[in-house]
Amino acid sequence: MNAPQAVQALRRPLPEDMILVLKAQFGDRFSMANAVREHHGKDESPYPFMLPDAVIFVENTDEVVMVVKLCNEYKIPLIPFGAGSSLEGHILAIEGGISLDMTAMNKIVALNAEDLTVSVQPGLTRKQLNEQIRDSGLFFPIDPGADASLGGMSATRASGTNAVRYGTMRENVVSLTVVTALGKVVRTAGRARKSSAGYDLTRIFVGSEGTLGIITEVTVKLYPQPEAISAAVCNFPTMHDAVQCVIQTIQLGVPVARVELLDRNAVMASNRYSKLTLRETPLLLFEFHGSEAGVKEQAETVQEIAKDCGGMDFEWAERPEDRNRLWTARHNAYFAGLQLRPGCKASTTDVCVPISRLAECIDAATKELEAASFPSTIVGHVGDGNFHVLMLVDPDSSAEWEESERINHKLVRQAIEADGTCTGEHGIGLHKLQFMAEEHGEDALDLMRALKMAFDPNNILNPGKVIQLIH
Amino acid sequence: MNAPQAVQALRRPLPEDMILVLKAQFGDRFSMANAVREHHGKDESPYPFMLPDAVIFVENTDEVVMVVKLCNEYKIPLIPFGAGSSLEGHILAIEGGISLDMTAMNKIVALNAEDLTVSVQPGLTRKQLNEQIRDSGLFFPIDPGADASLGGMSATRASGTNAVRYGTMRENVVSLTVVTALGKVVRTAGRARKSSAGYDLTRIFVGSEGTLGIITEVTVKLYPQPEAISAAVCNFPTMHDAVQCVIQTIQLGVPVARVELLDRNAVMASNRYSKLTLRETPLLLFEFHGSEAGVKEQAETVQEIAKDCGGMDFEWAERPEDRNRLWTARHNAYFAGLQLRPGCKASTTDVCVPISRLAECIDAATKELEAASFPSTIVGHVGDGNFHVLMLVDPDSSAEWEESERINHKLVRQAIEADGTCTGEHGIGLHKLQFMAEEHGEDALDLMRALKMAFDPNNILNPGKVIQLIH
Repeated sequence: MNAPQAVQALRRPLPEDMILVLKAQFGDRFSMANAVREHHGKDESPYPFMLPDAVIFVENTDEVVMVVKLCNEYKIPLIPFGAGSSLEGHILAIEGGISLDMTAMNKIVALNAEDLTVSVQPGLTRKQLNEQIRDSGLFFPIDPGADASLGGMSATRASGTNAVRYGTMRENVVSLTVVTALGKVVRTAGRARKSSAGYDLTRIFVGSEGTLGIITEVTVKLYPQPEAISAAVCNFPTMHDAVQCVIQTIQLGVPVARVELLDRNAVMASNRYSKLTLRETPLLLFEFHGSEAGVKEQAETVQEIAKDCGGMDFEWAERPEDRNRLWTARHNAYFAGLQLRPGCKASTTDVCVPISRLAECIDAATKELEAASFPSTIVGHVGDGNFHVLMLVDPDSSAEWEESERINHKLVRQAIEADGTCTGEHGIGLHKLQFMAEEHGEDALDLMRALKMAFDPNNILNPGKVIQLIH
Repeated sequence: MNAPQAVQALRRPLPEDMILVLKAQFGDRFSMANAVREHHGKDESPYPFMLPDAVIFVENTDEVVMVVKLCNEYKIPLIPFGAGSSLEGHILAIEGGISLDMTAMNKIVALNAEDLTVSVQPGLTRKQLNEQIRDSGLFFPIDPGADASLGGMSATRASGTNAVRYGTMRENVVSLTVVTALGKVVRTAGRARKSSAGYDLTRIFVGSEGTLGIITEVTVKLYPQPEAISAAVCNFPTMHDAVQCVIQTIQLGVPVARVELLDRNAVMASNRYSKLTLRETPLLLFEFHGSEAGVKEQAETVQEIAKDCGGMDFEWAERPEDRNRLWTARHNAYFAGLQLRPGCKASTTDVCVPISRLAECIDAATKELEAASFPSTIVGHVGDGNFHVLMLVDPDSSAEWEESERINHKLVRQAIEADGTCTGEHGIGLHKLQFMAEEHGEDALDLMRALKMAFDPNNILNPGKVIQLIH
């Protein structure tokens, strides 16, 4: 194949009377224009366009209910759309249907600063949220790099650079409002910090990728802005040394806020793209949060560990503008990587393993990539055992695509063998479907299928993603 | 009523041929003796005995599979039994059937110290676990007071004194092995710290109270034993002042490991029962974990807050034996309370609310209890917004039982109104079933019912608990 192909699936046109109802209800906010459909039929994955038949720009939960009921009645696929930053094909309309654009639902519903929670509409992005609550002295830490929407982040169980300290969306979503496949509005939980009152509906919808219900409100935890923050870069002679430093840091229980690994290629790419002058060897990028004394103590402990692992001196970035420059560069690592080979397409991996198995997995990845016929970078949220390979593939070379897929499969199989997972944070979408059975086993998939069929009996919600109903 | 009554339910005898098969398979480990059935037909709740028809002492997952398949074939209820420390009637055999005693499955399966995880059989208790891993330098923090089994703690989403710092079982279970109602063995996840690979089966079973599957292995997070620990007691003139101190501590983000509230009655009871000399006013019992400097810093911050809230001087317990004495007293608060009125039965509550609403809820509870015709104590994991009332009721007085139930209902309704929950950590069992609709709404319960029916189509797994299938 030249690139991942569209999944062959039954696709039937939207019924005429359904179109009439939707036009009457939504006017301009219902669109079948090609440009609009294209914008909603492509994400950051390497898949080609797979267009929905129509796009609806909803503004409130009642409108979502109305659309869901109609789709359920006519058995038409419905795909919620947030920022479109998926890397695995989550929002592609493989069976056509309607893309539900949530971006106009981007308000803060309630900031409960005393309880350290905020309730927002699903289209609000994480950066918008942090800008709007800045004066409260609180912040929302989950940071997947892209400026994703809170609804999309909930739906994919996102995490990113701060997860090693603050957890993922799994730990940080307090409650969701969800429209079910039958058009009922359900709030999954109250705002208590803990509850033993029945099945954990919140966690059922977190990570369900739009296949079990449409999220229309998200309540997440907030944290006091740390009294002190400092960031540092530490270079290592080899990837292996850098990984050893991370492993020891985690095992000692140092509450580091962020620890990111970049391989030599990723450092080179970032230097060029973000105009930095980082030393071009494998490096770790640390951030410490806490009191002045706490941050100092954490940094001293980690510096000692780094020294034992062959690390060079820490280079500090204490001023906010210096820290921001470093983290912007880290967040742009994806785009920086793309520039290493102009015109290329990126194929990314996302394995996550228990930390005791991280060094061997990264060593194996490095070896594979050194032998590959295309350039690549490795970056990782290594405090969680999670790393990404960015493989820069010629979009016209089927041989390169096949090679990148082969490497991806090999890394995934090794991660599963190490009791890890095929995706730490990007989600299943379309691209990881093939690994679900290998990771979970058919009996576990049968439970997932039973759940999907119980919650969405007509299979209208983002059909074909997360789980294949027939095996 | 004199005490909560057995739920009237269809109860049919075990089929003779099923008994023959089980006797042949399990020999002495299958019992229909009355003494054995009584031990498995009573927990720490105020409900009367509700006996299973038989008890099976299983020793491995294969045996669980065999029993589940048989129960599913004959449609016989099956109730897993751990330490029997439930307070809400979880293990009562309201429809008869088989109690599956897991206590012989009490081994550590794998300690992965480098990954900070341990995998155990479900009958191992938390104290046994901590004794057996002591030399590893790690510990398991979740501490619900009772020496509950890890399987039971997972099944009820337990938490307790350390949850404010370390989270509950929701956050600390990494993976479960579960035997499904159809007798399939499913591992819910690998051991990676995070994953976005499909529906969160782990969180579906955590808190499912034996109604969705039988847990036969639990993998939990461990933590490095803190370098320094110190504990302190601080007395306050009123409950309100003590609660304000906690609220400010949490809102400032101080990573206190434990903060427990005892009202004056609870302090008096503990002094008598545990031979302590605590000053008899409302008090907070703190514990700080961290580095030497970190613990000192946390303690100084909290001391300042306490002073602002009218608190008296901290009394420190730095030696392990002094700390243990204090925490043993806290853990014995339940039994200490019972001694305030010899011969009484206890009715407990377990509400949990957002911390901004905690003061008003505790104030209201205090007022109710001052007007009550029986003695009571209030204790609470107040850092989480969770508190318990222990109402000491004459078991022969139906008027007192009704009064205690009335107060319980009133506190629960207020908690739900405050966006909290009817149970922070004890679970639903039988006793809280009546509040599920009020807390979640019928549409959310319909999702829970759909889940239960999808996972346990013949309703054999702990039937009648968590969720009523007919409404």
